[in-house]
Amino acid sequence: MPTHTRRPSWIAVDWGSSNLRAWALDNQGEVLVRGSSERGMLSLSPGEYEHALLEVIGDWLSGTGLVDVVICGMAGARQGWREAAYLAVPTRLEDLVQGAVSPPLSDPRLRVRLLPGLCQTAPGNFDVMRGEETQLAGLVAREPLFSGLACLPGTHAKWARLENGAVTHFTTCMTGELYRLLARESVLRQSIGEDDLADPACREAFCTAIHEILSVPGRFPTWLFGLRAADLLDADLPTGQARGARLAARLSGLTIGLELAGLDKLDGPITLIGNAALSARYAMALEALGHESRRLDGETAVLAGLELAYRALTNSGKSP
Amino acid sequence: MPTHTRRPSWIAVDWGSSNLRAWALDNQGEVLVRGSSERGMLSLSPGEYEHALLEVIGDWLSGTGLVDVVICGMAGARQGWREAAYLAVPTRLEDLVQGAVSPPLSDPRLRVRLLPGLCQTAPGNFDVMRGEETQLAGLVAREPLFSGLACLPGTHAKWARLENGAVTHFTTCMTGELYRLLARESVLRQSIGEDDLADPACREAFCTAIHEILSVPGRFPTWLFGLRAADLLDADLPTGQARGARLAARLSGLTIGLELAGLDKLDGPITLIGNAALSARYAMALEALGHESRRLDGETAVLAGLELAYRALTNSGKSP
Repeated sequence: MPTHTRRPSWIAVDWGSSNLRAWALDNQGEVLVRGSSERGMLSLSPGEYEHALLEVIGDWLSGTGLVDVVICGMAGARQGWREAAYLAVPTRLEDLVQGAVSPPLSDPRLRVRLLPGLCQTAPGNFDVMRGEETQLAGLVAREPLFSGLACLPGTHAKWARLENGAVTHFTTCMTGELYRLLARESVLRQSIGEDDLADPACREAFCTAIHEILSVPGRFPTWLFGLRAADLLDADLPTGQARGARLAARLSGLTIGLELAGLDKLDGPITLIGNAALSARYAMALEALGHESRRLDGETAVLAGLELAYRALTNSGKSP
Repeated sequence: MPTHTRRPSWIAVDWGSSNLRAWALDNQGEVLVRGSSERGMLSLSPGEYEHALLEVIGDWLSGTGLVDVVICGMAGARQGWREAAYLAVPTRLEDLVQGAVSPPLSDPRLRVRLLPGLCQTAPGNFDVMRGEETQLAGLVAREPLFSGLACLPGTHAKWARLENGAVTHFTTCMTGELYRLLARESVLRQSIGEDDLADPACREAFCTAIHEILSVPGRFPTWLFGLRAADLLDADLPTGQARGARLAARLSGLTIGLELAGLDKLDGPITLIGNAALSARYAMALEALGHESRRLDGETAVLAGLELAYRALTNSGKSP
């Protein structure tokens, strides 16, 4: 655990299904120290959250004095620490704090707020997000009247339509999970390696797959098996690692392409929020289809979103 | 192991990735006895096949005399007992035996033939089958000049175009594997139960999903997550087992519908070859789209295909 010299003004936490990340910040929003653990929502019962949190942030707390902790993500799920019920869209992202809840605590030094997720209950368009809304809030913290399309690639990729700083509609695609299942758990695992989109051959395989699946999305289940067949039949493929890389690039293109094929309207520039590698992959897919994009780093976004919530809490009288 | 009184004329074997099924037949093609084991290709090295076969059929052999054993499926794969190289389409199904190979044997009572699979090497349409070609041969054994579209639903569903008893083109869809991964290994496993298409509500959910995915195949990754969201939001769903069943029926409809959306031309009547439950499911999907189908039992088909090969072997001089 790194040491630090200044007492934090507040602590930001992004608590997901499988891990948590925490940051101690000063009152200018500068990160003093960061920490993490693998104790995500899936491995915790409600009574274990406070201890799991203190394992990461305990050293940052001074002996006396109250510290605000603002948490987004799965810790606020029904099966988490305490439920912060979904807010239904349309929702202004600066209003997220209105749905925040405080879990029961033993340690008198902590004041914890769990931020809510968003839900969409239009018939035929049921959807939920929990964690990503705070990254979107980070975008709005930087551009208060943002309107446009934002994409957060990942296990469950989110596409959100924003109007003047409010989320009006969103869509989740199981793209990352689908890729992982196919590449690691299906018959394709014998053929799929690790791709490298800096390699021109991988890039071409990726972009070709994007175009093909956009033209006939229903071919997805066939083109999946085609990866295995091409490998078995040595079809126009290099040997060794290069083969696994080429097939991985094609599988990635097919999977991301299927996601893009199902979206209503890709008007740009599209704001990609996430880690550098995955955002670059999506930017390449969008560029292949003639769409512009720009990037916002995922950690920067979630911190800005948590800070927006912290400022609202401390200014609203909710945090006396 | 059931007993039998008549000495078999020959033995038919369908040897897949995860199991083998064997039948002893008399010279009228009547099944005298059947057996099976879980020792499929994935669990065997080449030197173990003969012993695994004898574990199932050993009791059927008389002390003296040679018995023909005709085997289709993965035992003839490169990573199987001995490779029976794929025959490239177009292939007349009565000619399968021309690609049969004999593996090395220790037991002098056995004469074993491994039938080949089929491959398709047209650029962009690489595909393979191994085992299903013998079921298609069974269709042709019954209708020698069969022309039309045949579908063999399963883990890797096969669609074959036949003309006058020859396979001219085929397509594999990873539909069954995709369903299993999503229903049992993904985040959806928390929501998906077992459906029952005899239940009108399940049938409606299944057929609605078929129509929806046919109209916008690219929505597949979104509608997948929609199943989880609908469950979390209690969206127009019953409780308990009925909920899991309803969501399973929708997932099945989305998955089979995506397969159907990618096929070029569904001209009927389509011949479904497989087990009763899965064929009935496909028949329902096809009917929802206005396509006629008819059924051929999968075991009947594979036995008829193996018998066609056996007769060709014994009449051709290949089996002196």
